[in-house]
Amino acid sequence: MNEDALGEWLRRQAGARPELILGIGHDCAVFRPRRGEDLLLKADQSIEGVHFRYGLSAGAAGERALARALSDIAASGGEPRACLVSLTVSKRNDERWIKGFFRGLLRLARRTGTILAGGDLARADRVYCDAIVLGAVPSGQALRRDGARPGDSLWVSGRLGKSYERRIQPRLELGRKLRGRATACMDVSDGLAIDLHRMCVASAVAAQIERVPVARGSTLDRALYGGDDYELLFTLSAGAQAPPGVTRLGCIVSGKAGEIRFEGRSIRPRGYDHLR
Amino acid sequence: MNEDALGEWLRRQAGARPELILGIGHDCAVFRPRRGEDLLLKADQSIEGVHFRYGLSAGAAGERALARALSDIAASGGEPRACLVSLTVSKRNDERWIKGFFRGLLRLARRTGTILAGGDLARADRVYCDAIVLGAVPSGQALRRDGARPGDSLWVSGRLGKSYERRIQPRLELGRKLRGRATACMDVSDGLAIDLHRMCVASAVAAQIERVPVARGSTLDRALYGGDDYELLFTLSAGAQAPPGVTRLGCIVSGKAGEIRFEGRSIRPRGYDHLR
Repeated sequence: MNEDALGEWLRRQAGARPELILGIGHDCAVFRPRRGEDLLLKADQSIEGVHFRYGLSAGAAGERALARALSDIAASGGEPRACLVSLTVSKRNDERWIKGFFRGLLRLARRTGTILAGGDLARADRVYCDAIVLGAVPSGQALRRDGARPGDSLWVSGRLGKSYERRIQPRLELGRKLRGRATACMDVSDGLAIDLHRMCVASAVAAQIERVPVARGSTLDRALYGGDDYELLFTLSAGAQAPPGVTRLGCIVSGKAGEIRFEGRSIRPRGYDHLR
Repeated sequence: MNEDALGEWLRRQAGARPELILGIGHDCAVFRPRRGEDLLLKADQSIEGVHFRYGLSAGAAGERALARALSDIAASGGEPRACLVSLTVSKRNDERWIKGFFRGLLRLARRTGTILAGGDLARADRVYCDAIVLGAVPSGQALRRDGARPGDSLWVSGRLGKSYERRIQPRLELGRKLRGRATACMDVSDGLAIDLHRMCVASAVAAQIERVPVARGSTLDRALYGGDDYELLFTLSAGAQAPPGVTRLGCIVSGKAGEIRFEGRSIRPRGYDHLR
């Protein structure tokens, strides 16, 4: 199989949607925006041995690569529309592996309304994938992390401290429900402590954590400082009702921008940092 | 330097433009399309040891990474608007290297009106960069590779067979001039023979090459089958005038879709293929 044959196979799998004027097999994907929408753009790398373990099945690796980027679209309140996939494979990854990777990715793409619109292929010494998702929100309604205010309640979807090998379920439905409701929103991907710190720095506020929903079999330490949760962290104005199925973590308070208080003291905003 | 400090440094360098509602430091970049425009999206990987040699200066690597994706925007007749940069570095790449990489990339970004809107950072064992460019064209005017017709003249910008270590000059101005004029257009990045073959397959036509403009110091073989030229290959209707500074390669003829004739025989559509 050469690049053109793979491109042709992908083109047949990718399907179509009206906004996508040109997709796989052209120099650029061409996309016609709907009137009254803002577009969201996110790229997320998934590297073998870094973001997922060597030996993960091809399909799971493909699904995971797309899911990570979809989690950011969810955190912005968006609907995914199209994706590009840049994929580097090693000599160990044969045609069967590559097709398995894309099958896993495309299953999630179809389930979430994301059309594969293009990408780039190369060969090196391990699997490296960059999944790029184009999403949309009604104009001006993208959720952002800098709107939390003292007195807001603080929430998280699901439980934290989950294993990085589990399947990621991007919280797209919840993100859409939070449009026009959450005062701030982001996804927890590097760890609750560091990500909440980032939200508080952006919003120039502090936070008080009252309780942490720890995933079954995990620990409080992992829930606070582990990465790879892909849950939504968001704030609501005092008195606003939360959607079902989410957990109240605490509240936003005034104080030193970025300070996180838990059990009577400030906690360090540590978490996963790729440059450390 | 940690990820947040680098993000803050990049945010200060990145500048602003009215369509970019949210940029670096948010879960997604948020982009407000102008009315009457189609959007172009392209991702291009640049891997150390594959797309550029080990030891290339940081600034040259950064510039090259963005230039490769801009060449596809040019081939679609577009104007670049924003870019995302996914970057993986090795332990050899310190803060100085990373900043040098982005300085090189940002110089080209500024020169071409491309704003850095986000990205993703990781660490592994060599430099991988995926440069994603968002561009725009007046609605319906994106150049494409499937419109070549028998009788069209065939053209290329610049000379072919250039060394892959030279600086890439994306042909953005020429691409814009070709809007509404070229019947088909694409960039030559894997080699003239394979890329012209792709244009002819997409257009269901054959091509006759009459002359190949070989770069100084290069060979006809490299001009036909070498990659990394980043010139525009395009067709014009019979009698249409070409913009200045381009070379007539030959013409489009009817025949077996994808066949390339040169010096009285069919030539094999070989060139750079990442999967071979």
